[in-house]
Amino acid sequence: MSDPPGEFQLIAAIRERIERAGAPESVPGLILGSGDDAAVSVHEGASAITVDALVEGIHFQMPPFEPRNVGHKALATALSDLAAMGAGGSEAYVQLGVREGITEEQLLELADGLGALAATHGLAIAGGDVTRAPSLLLAVTAVGQAATPDALVRRSGARAGDVLAVTGELGGAAAGLMLLERPELGAALDEPVAAGLRRRQLEPAPRLAAGAALATAGATAMIDLSDGLGGDAGHLAAASSAAIRIQGDRLPVQAGVGAVAEAAGADAFELVTGGGEDYELLATLPPDRLEEAAAAVAATGSDLTVIGSVDSGAGVELSGPGGESRPVGGFDQLRRRPAPPDRS
Amino acid sequence: MSDPPGEFQLIAAIRERIERAGAPESVPGLILGSGDDAAVSVHEGASAITVDALVEGIHFQMPPFEPRNVGHKALATALSDLAAMGAGGSEAYVQLGVREGITEEQLLELADGLGALAATHGLAIAGGDVTRAPSLLLAVTAVGQAATPDALVRRSGARAGDVLAVTGELGGAAAGLMLLERPELGAALDEPVAAGLRRRQLEPAPRLAAGAALATAGATAMIDLSDGLGGDAGHLAAASSAAIRIQGDRLPVQAGVGAVAEAAGADAFELVTGGGEDYELLATLPPDRLEEAAAAVAATGSDLTVIGSVDSGAGVELSGPGGESRPVGGFDQLRRRPAPPDRS
Repeated sequence: MSDPPGEFQLIAAIRERIERAGAPESVPGLILGSGDDAAVSVHEGASAITVDALVEGIHFQMPPFEPRNVGHKALATALSDLAAMGAGGSEAYVQLGVREGITEEQLLELADGLGALAATHGLAIAGGDVTRAPSLLLAVTAVGQAATPDALVRRSGARAGDVLAVTGELGGAAAGLMLLERPELGAALDEPVAAGLRRRQLEPAPRLAAGAALATAGATAMIDLSDGLGGDAGHLAAASSAAIRIQGDRLPVQAGVGAVAEAAGADAFELVTGGGEDYELLATLPPDRLEEAAAAVAATGSDLTVIGSVDSGAGVELSGPGGESRPVGGFDQLRRRPAPPDRS
Repeated sequence: MSDPPGEFQLIAAIRERIERAGAPESVPGLILGSGDDAAVSVHEGASAITVDALVEGIHFQMPPFEPRNVGHKALATALSDLAAMGAGGSEAYVQLGVREGITEEQLLELADGLGALAATHGLAIAGGDVTRAPSLLLAVTAVGQAATPDALVRRSGARAGDVLAVTGELGGAAAGLMLLERPELGAALDEPVAAGLRRRQLEPAPRLAAGAALATAGATAMIDLSDGLGGDAGHLAAASSAAIRIQGDRLPVQAGVGAVAEAAGADAFELVTGGGEDYELLATLPPDRLEEAAAAVAATGSDLTVIGSVDSGAGVELSGPGGESRPVGGFDQLRRRPAPPDRS
């Protein structure tokens, strides 16, 4: 196997590709970007900071993932956390781990995916580090901004009487993964529908604009759907010391999810409520702000669907499509399988 | 093999151990710490941000590393980057990757090491994420503060006529690693000397106080010695568009390095100039600020030694202990072996 490129030559090539993909070299407040011991920024107002990672063999396999999907999705998962605060993204810092057998061209394609998503959201890749690792991995630190700390929406503000709403559609990421692993499951689907499912798994769109709109429209609590609706609703309920009731018959389901589940002999409702990785936003709102919030989210090109309510108490109560009570699971990053139903 | 602990239970246990080790739960400017989608901070002045990672099998093996060494060193390497800017550390964000076979107790010991170093520097662990991974890994994002962007020292400010100085002593991390791998090399050493070498490899001390002192005392450029004196001097020379001349007979060498090198049949000068991981600071200063800088560094409990000068031109010129010219190498994180001599 030929030598990997040298560290400093590779970093320079990656930086060039990120900029060629359209990512801004700088953003307001960023004084010094990558290339020194640390980046330097000056931000008025409040900053939101989050870290997230994608690890080959755990979160993705190549194939079906292409390197550019990996770059996109690693940044998207971190930006989704900022979206759930209602923060605008400003900078990201990237720790890249490179295993043997990964070519320089693959790393540059990964940079293309990262850079293209950064360009979409006007985000600078302000720093990073490269090391060898036993598998390809990308740990992303994303930094976002808001005018004041109070403008950022926490998980803990849901109050009894609030409505529970979700952006976009659910179940697509889980169905997309099944389709990528077993393409024959898509035999009955129109190609644009199948492509939509695959894209949701490979290159999810962080809902930054919708998150900011919801924050402005009075969202009392918010979380992004990474581990699955049931599990993430449980986090929100626990942080807010409130009960969350989800009406399964109101959940917005991405086109094709039912057909893929049927072809696989799987339960579509499980994919929608426990599949995770859809990276939509789950928010709670005072009922009198709902109309304003729905309009604001619609203006970002997404939809807002009321799927339940907040009550006093604790835990998550999920009714199935026929109104029957259903157990609530989530996704455990360490066990890498559904977590046991929430006992809280 | 028994199940790993669940993700959320583990995160709670790690947070508890970090705080029990004395790390502050919050710091000035930190509005919201870990437990939500993102941390929230408000910092007046300038922030410095850096990312760094330690990967098992690449940067360390267990043994000789104990889990608490891993937690300490991962944070230390990131803080060392802040030290090289002259920034004070305020928060760190931790991405932890856990492989099979690592026990919960080992992860909590890792948290002890991380928390103890955070406590030493009054740093809050403000966020983090845990995932499975094929080897134990810790990626740390460190955030530091300064009054203004101009108070932070870049690599690019070295000017012809400046003196070149280094904090502390060199060569200890490389000799310490040899000693950990082959304890018999330390047969001729007093135990405190051997322990000092091992500690330099296992738990290096980031020079935050010395870095801040050098920034205040007029350092024109600064870099931390992670890849080795030769390579890091090369980065500083390139960023400053200047030539760096290093007098090998003036280098401060940690006690025991010569004896370990001799026992191993290795070249002590190579360990001192190319070994890397000492995490001391290399700084350039106007000659008329040297006395002030030396006093300021001494007040932090470290030493400052003049080891060369800055000249017009490019690249690094290194003279050996006898005054002869020596090739300059560095350390390449991807090749994980000495980089070829700098041709610039």
